[in-house]
Amino acid sequence: MARLISLVERGGPPARQVGRLTFPRSGNAYTVGITGAPGAGKSTLADGLIRLVRAAGQEVGVLAIDPSSPFSGGAILGDRVRMQDHAVDPGVFIRSMATRGHLGGLALATPEAVRVLDAAGFPLVLIETVGVGQVEVEIAGEADTTVVVVNPGWGDAVQANKAGLLEAADIFVINKADRPGAKETARDLEMMLMMTQDLGEWTPPILTAVATTGAGVDEVWEAVGRHRVFLDQAGLLARRRTSRLESEVRAIVSSRLEQHAYQACRGEEFQGLLSQVAARQLDPYAAAEQVLRTPGGEG
Amino acid sequence: MARLISLVERGGPPARQVGRLTFPRSGNAYTVGITGAPGAGKSTLADGLIRLVRAAGQEVGVLAIDPSSPFSGGAILGDRVRMQDHAVDPGVFIRSMATRGHLGGLALATPEAVRVLDAAGFPLVLIETVGVGQVEVEIAGEADTTVVVVNPGWGDAVQANKAGLLEAADIFVINKADRPGAKETARDLEMMLMMTQDLGEWTPPILTAVATTGAGVDEVWEAVGRHRVFLDQAGLLARRRTSRLESEVRAIVSSRLEQHAYQACRGEEFQGLLSQVAARQLDPYAAAEQVLRTPGGEG
Repeated sequence: MARLISLVERGGPPARQVGRLTFPRSGNAYTVGITGAPGAGKSTLADGLIRLVRAAGQEVGVLAIDPSSPFSGGAILGDRVRMQDHAVDPGVFIRSMATRGHLGGLALATPEAVRVLDAAGFPLVLIETVGVGQVEVEIAGEADTTVVVVNPGWGDAVQANKAGLLEAADIFVINKADRPGAKETARDLEMMLMMTQDLGEWTPPILTAVATTGAGVDEVWEAVGRHRVFLDQAGLLARRRTSRLESEVRAIVSSRLEQHAYQACRGEEFQGLLSQVAARQLDPYAAAEQVLRTPGGEG
Repeated sequence: MARLISLVERGGPPARQVGRLTFPRSGNAYTVGITGAPGAGKSTLADGLIRLVRAAGQEVGVLAIDPSSPFSGGAILGDRVRMQDHAVDPGVFIRSMATRGHLGGLALATPEAVRVLDAAGFPLVLIETVGVGQVEVEIAGEADTTVVVVNPGWGDAVQANKAGLLEAADIFVINKADRPGAKETARDLEMMLMMTQDLGEWTPPILTAVATTGAGVDEVWEAVGRHRVFLDQAGLLARRRTSRLESEVRAIVSSRLEQHAYQACRGEEFQGLLSQVAARQLDPYAAAEQVLRTPGGEG
């Protein structure tokens, strides 16, 4: 499984091969995204959730995505030490993935890696993303249930809003809730949700936890279960998954065309066009059109 | 001129028409980019530079680019009030541009707007960008000389590094240099330049100014002149401009292919492919390949 994910991570024809094998066998795992700012306690919370899941006898796959780290290949990252407790448990598979080349590549590789675990039969896959940027939020949002972890403090609620986390969240967890300001953060989040979100039938619960002691972790897991039931009963689970697949197809098309643009903008012919542009004989748009018209171009 | 820039801003065939007219007539204006964090004093510095230029009898066009603002159409933005002093001076043309649709669109529109002013005969065009993000730095870096404005304070130097400003800068101005910490900021910038930059023949000078009083503005203008002479004598001006045009062609090609992807991913046929993906009969990569193969697709 680790080797299949490595292939997916590297991309190219072998990754395609893995995708062809896993895709028809996937679609059964329930996926839970866990995201939030660095240091918010995502790994500790994930660790707590894994314990609960294991205690219930369920197997779980975990993908820890770190877009900013150049390290990958299954290395357990620093703040993920707690998860090592599960390293000898055959019912838990933990793999970290880091950026190869570009962020977009990781966003494309994540659903494929999830499908490897899904096809292998894990009924549950946790996707933890480290760091908060547009891509991280995007990756974390590509789950059936997305848990956003914040800490007490006014700034955190505002940051969550700025980073687009409010929109991605199905469940909020104010972790380190034994610190001052937890209540205020809950109120701030509630207000921001009311102001910014067009709340449908699901109102994201705002929970508190102290993941290091395990306090509140049960409630988080219960909320995940409630959200799952809600999605199921509302018929939204299938719809969400279809819409995620649609986004994925679009992203692949975009990525292919980008590679295509890269290929088209090189070689002798391209250099010839550039000389004409530099001599002001051809304007940049006309040159671009010629690039797109060449056999290597758009067709 | 304002109407031509509006056409450029809106894009589409009329913008193309403007481009075809202006491109062969452009390439004569010297362009100076001014960028830095919000509140650094870019507009005040620009105002000071405009005064100097006008005192020397030269005409100047000014583009104030605000990627984050939904307002445009020549509106003078709040912090640009000082520039209104020049509103009745026919030797100064000031135009603000804001995002229409997406940031990438603004990055593409900026060189076209510059060419409108260039073709109209302005020997000098100032491009001020508000805000600091990748796109803003990219826009500001698309000038013959790029002036980066920072303020005293350790954080500012670090921010400049993080935002990619160190690489874009031909000249540094520590504005509000009457505040504490100007010397330390100069030293920090110098160190960061030494560490991160492969300094060629041009070492970006680190100047100090208090733009509100006019102190140091002369020196900034002199440095712009020195940089211009350097580029000219080293034969770099033409090379830089050619390389900017090359980037522009690439950006247009990418943008076209993006639009293309958008077009390809809609319609009945696309919906049919998605249904097959949702039914797990077709994997997302195979679907993407079919999208790219359709007549509306890659060819």
